[in-house]
Amino acid sequence: MTDFFKDIPNIAYEGPDSDNEYAFRHYDPDEQVAGRRMEDHLRFSVAYWHSFAWEGQDPFGGRTFDRPWFGDGMEKARLKADVAFEMFQILGQPFFCFHDLDVRPEGESFAESARNLEEITDYFRKKMAETGTRLLWGTANMFTHRRFMSGASTNPDPDVFAYAGATLKAAIDATHKLGGENYVLWGGREGYETLLNTDLGREADQYAAMLSKVVDYKHKIGFEGTILIEPKPQEPSKHQYDYDVGTIYGFLKRYGLEDEVKLNIEQGHAILAGHSFEHELALAASLGMLGSIDMNRNDYQSGWDTDQFPNNVPEVALAYYEILKMGGFTTGGTNFDAKLRRQSLDPEDLILAHVGAMDVCARGLKAAAAMLEDGELERRREERYAGWQGEKAKEFLTRETSLEDLDAYIRSGVEPEPRSGRQERLENLINRYV
Amino acid sequence: MTDFFKDIPNIAYEGPDSDNEYAFRHYDPDEQVAGRRMEDHLRFSVAYWHSFAWEGQDPFGGRTFDRPWFGDGMEKARLKADVAFEMFQILGQPFFCFHDLDVRPEGESFAESARNLEEITDYFRKKMAETGTRLLWGTANMFTHRRFMSGASTNPDPDVFAYAGATLKAAIDATHKLGGENYVLWGGREGYETLLNTDLGREADQYAAMLSKVVDYKHKIGFEGTILIEPKPQEPSKHQYDYDVGTIYGFLKRYGLEDEVKLNIEQGHAILAGHSFEHELALAASLGMLGSIDMNRNDYQSGWDTDQFPNNVPEVALAYYEILKMGGFTTGGTNFDAKLRRQSLDPEDLILAHVGAMDVCARGLKAAAAMLEDGELERRREERYAGWQGEKAKEFLTRETSLEDLDAYIRSGVEPEPRSGRQERLENLINRYV
Amino acid sequence: MTDFFKDIPNIAYEGPDSDNEYAFRHYDPDEQVAGRRMEDHLRFSVAYWHSFAWEGQDPFGGRTFDRPWFGDGMEKARLKADVAFEMFQILGQPFFCFHDLDVRPEGESFAESARNLEEITDYFRKKMAETGTRLLWGTANMFTHRRFMSGASTNPDPDVFAYAGATLKAAIDATHKLGGENYVLWGGREGYETLLNTDLGREADQYAAMLSKVVDYKHKIGFEGTILIEPKPQEPSKHQYDYDVGTIYGFLKRYGLEDEVKLNIEQGHAILAGHSFEHELALAASLGMLGSIDMNRNDYQSGWDTDQFPNNVPEVALAYYEILKMGGFTTGGTNFDAKLRRQSLDPEDLILAHVGAMDVCARGLKAAAAMLEDGELERRREERYAGWQGEKAKEFLTRETSLEDLDAYIRSGVEPEPRSGRQERLENLINRYV
Amino acid sequence: MTDFFKDIPNIAYEGPDSDNEYAFRHYDPDEQVAGRRMEDHLRFSVAYWHSFAWEGQDPFGGRTFDRPWFGDGMEKARLKADVAFEMFQILGQPFFCFHDLDVRPEGESFAESARNLEEITDYFRKKMAETGTRLLWGTANMFTHRRFMSGASTNPDPDVFAYAGATLKAAIDATHKLGGENYVLWGGREGYETLLNTDLGREADQYAAMLSKVVDYKHKIGFEGTILIEPKPQEPSKHQYDYDVGTIYGFLKRYGLEDEVKLNIEQGHAILAGHSFEHELALAASLGMLGSIDMNRNDYQSGWDTDQFPNNVPEVALAYYEILKMGGFTTGGTNFDAKLRRQSLDPEDLILAHVGAMDVCARGLKAAAAMLEDGELERRREERYAGWQGEKAKEFLTRETSLEDLDAYIRSGVEPEPRSGRQERLENLINRYV
Repeated sequence: MTDFFKDIPNIAYEGPDSDNEYAFRHYDPDEQVAGRRMEDHLRFSVAYWHSFAWEGQDPFGGRTFDRPWFGDGMEKARLKADVAFEMFQILGQPFFCFHDLDVRPEGESFAESARNLEEITDYFRKKMAETGTRLLWGTANMFTHRRFMSGASTNPDPDVFAYAGATLKAAIDATHKLGGENYVLWGGREGYETLLNTDLGREADQYAAMLSKVVDYKHKIGFEGTILIEPKPQEPSKHQYDYDVGTIYGFLKRYGLEDEVKLNIEQGHAILAGHSFEHELALAASLGMLGSIDMNRNDYQSGWDTDQFPNNVPEVALAYYEILKMGGFTTGGTNFDAKLRRQSLDPEDLILAHVGAMDVCARGLKAAAAMLEDGELERRREERYAGWQGEKAKEFLTRETSLEDLDAYIRSGVEPEPRSGRQERLENLINRYV
Repeated sequence: MTDFFKDIPNIAYEGPDSDNEYAFRHYDPDEQVAGRRMEDHLRFSVAYWHSFAWEGQDPFGGRTFDRPWFGDGMEKARLKADVAFEMFQILGQPFFCFHDLDVRPEGESFAESARNLEEITDYFRKKMAETGTRLLWGTANMFTHRRFMSGASTNPDPDVFAYAGATLKAAIDATHKLGGENYVLWGGREGYETLLNTDLGREADQYAAMLSKVVDYKHKIGFEGTILIEPKPQEPSKHQYDYDVGTIYGFLKRYGLEDEVKLNIEQGHAILAGHSFEHELALAASLGMLGSIDMNRNDYQSGWDTDQFPNNVPEVALAYYEILKMGGFTTGGTNFDAKLRRQSLDPEDLILAHVGAMDVCARGLKAAAAMLEDGELERRREERYAGWQGEKAKEFLTRETSLEDLDAYIRSGVEPEPRSGRQERLENLINRYV
Repeated sequence: MTDFFKDIPNIAYEGPDSDNEYAFRHYDPDEQVAGRRMEDHLRFSVAYWHSFAWEGQDPFGGRTFDRPWFGDGMEKARLKADVAFEMFQILGQPFFCFHDLDVRPEGESFAESARNLEEITDYFRKKMAETGTRLLWGTANMFTHRRFMSGASTNPDPDVFAYAGATLKAAIDATHKLGGENYVLWGGREGYETLLNTDLGREADQYAAMLSKVVDYKHKIGFEGTILIEPKPQEPSKHQYDYDVGTIYGFLKRYGLEDEVKLNIEQGHAILAGHSFEHELALAASLGMLGSIDMNRNDYQSGWDTDQFPNNVPEVALAYYEILKMGGFTTGGTNFDAKLRRQSLDPEDLILAHVGAMDVCARGLKAAAAMLEDGELERRREERYAGWQGEKAKEFLTRETSLEDLDAYIRSGVEPEPRSGRQERLENLINRYV
Repeated sequence: MTDFFKDIPNIAYEGPDSDNEYAFRHYDPDEQVAGRRMEDHLRFSVAYWHSFAWEGQDPFGGRTFDRPWFGDGMEKARLKADVAFEMFQILGQPFFCFHDLDVRPEGESFAESARNLEEITDYFRKKMAETGTRLLWGTANMFTHRRFMSGASTNPDPDVFAYAGATLKAAIDATHKLGGENYVLWGGREGYETLLNTDLGREADQYAAMLSKVVDYKHKIGFEGTILIEPKPQEPSKHQYDYDVGTIYGFLKRYGLEDEVKLNIEQGHAILAGHSFEHELALAASLGMLGSIDMNRNDYQSGWDTDQFPNNVPEVALAYYEILKMGGFTTGGTNFDAKLRRQSLDPEDLILAHVGAMDVCARGLKAAAAMLEDGELERRREERYAGWQGEKAKEFLTRETSLEDLDAYIRSGVEPEPRSGRQERLENLINRYV
């Protein structure tokens, strides 16, 4: 045991009236919600990156955190892992996730980096077995090192493309070894800073070629997890190809990959793309592509990725409503892609930020379950489209009905009468649950 | 002749040193640029809507313009047409475009509206023959009337769907009759105000069903023009399905319509979607979907569609660069989807706004042509990707090369060396031309 | 009695478990909260403009509502008033507010407009006496009519300046007659569309000159209400001078008006200026300038003024927290500057939107009161600044302590140690109350 | 001589037809423009920070640049200075500017940091004497070190306040020693991350107290330069107190500092605050507070500070128009607060980015001078306000004219007639010069 979290107890459920900061007031893992244990619905995951690798820097300031594991070398990496798994025990969440670069020191060569990753993931495997914590997903960081500054798969230099491929192989191998339930790709440098030096079409081909290799490799090694792409419109790049759900769908469809890849959708990234989180979730669900979520919160008024912990229950409820409506997660889960504010220096902050976020999600889930169970929202939605249940209306949608047929129908004297959309009444309805 | 533009002369080219407000300083229709007459490259079009139908209102204010043709009835509609064609003569641009609702009074019934449209387009046909002005595109306004408040093709009421179909037929017929070179769909109400009352998946199916009918009808009547969708992310709706180029591509691909439909891309709508105009043009070109453009300018700092006349030559040059690079317009053109500021009350303002915009486009086109002819930008771009010309690199992109192959290649000791992206040097290069 | 709201009952408090749409679940006027009746804290007001004058149009569509009082003439104006006061009875809120143009027909001349206003406000006075509904504030609409297209007080034409002065006089007289508790100025056209034709300095002087006249007139006629300016950064104008709280403070201070004028702060306008609502409230309170609020909600992702009804309790709670912390409203109140979505056609929608909003505010107020009463948030805030209670620290703030003194103090060996800002823990704390 | 810029020649003016990348095509220091040498108008300054201290990192990636002077210790600091002054010789710009932290290593103690600053600025002094390069302004970096994470002057810890004071003294001393023409304060951490832990009013008092000390100290030591505050609305903090020109004016006025402090206005910061650059310049000029500018460019579609080199001549021309209109710079100048894109790795990029920017500014200045000399824009602006030259109109603005007087004037039968704002014609006019 390290002493990083000393005196911090394991967090237990104490109910909404508890005034103990170190307790769950809403998240009770064993409580049944919508036919499952709450833990099995929410499938919480802690992000190694934000909680253990990020040092508090921002574009105008350096390291603020003071962690004993900061620094190079495998010893520090193991200390980091020790603390991480201690936090997992304190929180009791079932999953974690990581980038290769979060967990292993960069080596002098690719081979050394790969060995470091193998070694540290062996260490993880042991700890996972001891503690029962599982891996929601692994991923490769192909955006921090300067070799990737102009892209990974979409780099103008084929050697970087190759380096990206080798890096992906190592990260997928590690994920497979640890029984990861998904593998995620986030293309933070797959995009451009200026169109002036960029060939969009060529880069799309490169990206698709690599994605095909990932899919092929997954099948070859028998990895059963889901391949997920994470949309984000920009930052760090001026424009990123995986802009949003709609854009990625088009890309996958273009290259015939739409049955092999799903999406990991982040609240903050949806916001940056001009969408609500629930929009991106609903759209992905309607396309059969909703895989997993990165739960966090972006400040609506900061034009960059703020990755804050979720804290607005009404918003979170709408997100889980979409997830419950599609039947809940299968391989996906709720990963807290959220980081402390850089002024939140204390170990307690790290624990309590997660505790608060888990409670917010639990409240959101329960509200969503009640909304769905009650059925009133869905009844009103269906009622709005009820006209489409008529035989004539169904024919309208077939290709046999032509514009001339519709013209004839209207000329027969039909004048549609607008009906209220009742938005405010629906918003009132939602407020009964949140 | 009406007297609306009395004393305003026809606009002729006088060269850059002219200080005559009523002259082109850069737009010389007959000047050869990149292998065509400038007029044939730019293919300017005046938008009936902004110039003749809009009355100057905004969300906080009413009509500011005082036009003799405002009001109801066919007589006013003909007077409006008279003035419009007078303006076309003054400007000498080859094209115009219109919505059904811009040109004809709404009737008491659909049939009456359709008759009004037929009558006024007959009047147009005669004027077009007399003056030589052609139709770039026609379109149906399915967003202003309250019957379309909840969408046209995506309406929850099948009767509105049918009404939309009948309306489309009438507008396509009119466009066909007038020899329109394209037909445009802009889905300003095809979207939602709140997800709470919306079924995204169902509405996508409805939209695709209607689009299929449009395509079928086009072929049936022998309309040779291009069907174009115009992307816009929001406004009036909170979310519009035709969000941007990437999203529409995915939609068309999903429903098998990608070979039948191209895009009409507007600067202001690109901006509202978080993209540069040149991004949307380049992306559409790379997907083979760039059809036509709505040239205007959106204030970067106003979060709504400002539809201003273009006035920044360096920006416009980058747009025409993308168009020239794909070989120039075929059926498309440069439609000024731009409106006077509501304080610009005078007939002179209407003429001079177009004169200035045409000159800005001419300067942009000439700069773009020089950039392309000079070839330096393309040479530098190709040089950046030169590594991909190697045999090994080409193999990397085939599916035969696996992640393991890339891993082996990298483990052979390859460590990529980053190379400068040279953005500032490219920006300097551009500034030689603009 | 009109029959517009027929069959809609007066709304009564039924408690949180009620599933009656036509009941308050949280707003109980007589419940004591933080030392006052809830009604006396919230001081709800209905906005005549949105609820009775707006016809549902938006920049891309026309009238959607179908109200018997739409149209010209005094008879329609009286019918509108009849329905309005019926709604006030149904909702039971204590206040309303209006623009001159909302309530009276525009006359052929200024004199006729003024007479119309006198006549309709006489009608109001009678109804107010009968029903007990009071006037929170009146205001003059100096942005809708084309005469104000280039500004009212800041117009380049002195005749418009004079017209604005006459209009203000009429509106202040009406407000005074009806016992209004405040008078509001919102300068929707006091700004510019382009700097190219604008003299910022001159227009500021004009604006200040008019504001001085308003203040003088108020004192002359013995109007005891508060003069309030309402900040908004833009829309309809590209730039509006009353940008935000900080800007208006500087303007008032510059012209010596800071003791005569307070602010009416709107959530949606705060958002458009890049601020949170609570920021603007806290800043105004710290400057002694927080007068009243326009409660509504702006879509964070629509770049225009959406004026939706409030529905997010956690956000609303933070707003009322600032208000309670400064001691609650004096002459101010909670005006719903919120409008139905244009698809919400039914009379029921109008009632229920207000019912839901009143409940949201009641929940917010109660949460804010609990937070303040509990005192934990304030204790933690004070603890963060506790170092400033030391004698030495207090001296630091005096002008007697120079940079040299601070230098000497630091050179004595002081090295500050950063302490956690504990943001997430505070957010968790807030979530106990909302 | 270091060999960092070896083979790069000094940049000389060669005229617009030159195709030499290493030449000025528009910036000719000795050319007379609007009554001064171009060099004396533009007063270019290179920012030490971006060009020599920044390592290419962004929020998602580490160092990309590979500079021989990166690292700790005074030797590296001197090497950095050697290279910097070599660049100044190559570019020939008259000024540079720096933060303390850019130029000296952070010491183990405040005293050591201060000694380091003294030593390196002695080194600068010698180089300045040798080369003739002057100091436009100095400033203290009070945002990068973790001690300032919660603010400098506005910190909740009085020891940090004192540390800030000592730091300011050292930086002002250094600036004074080097003959700096201004001293700048940018309060990147003077603001908040969350209102929940912040006392706005107290922090404003702290900030004003420190600013008063700065002013007192300036006078005491006989520093003749101008004290400048640089506005920025946010980033790194969620909210920064020095939001924009209007806000800072109010703050200074509140604390009686408006005659002692002027503004350093940055294009990118103006954009982030929702304003155009020319708006902030015009507003500051109208308040007598325009001191100096940070010239750069913010991507309009990236919500963070992109600090790109300027490249759009029409925009830059409008900025210099405001500066020329107020009579040109006195102590201020044009500082390139601009950084290379992180992929622009080569020494050549650093030189050429500045060359391009200087040419863009020169073109902008020349266009602005022509616009001003020609006088047409000002004539049209004055014509728009010509009505205010009447005697009656002038009386309107006096306090003697009351609302009743204006009412009487209007009731005498005046009905203002709107006149065109002619925006498009003015935009056309501008396009003659750019």
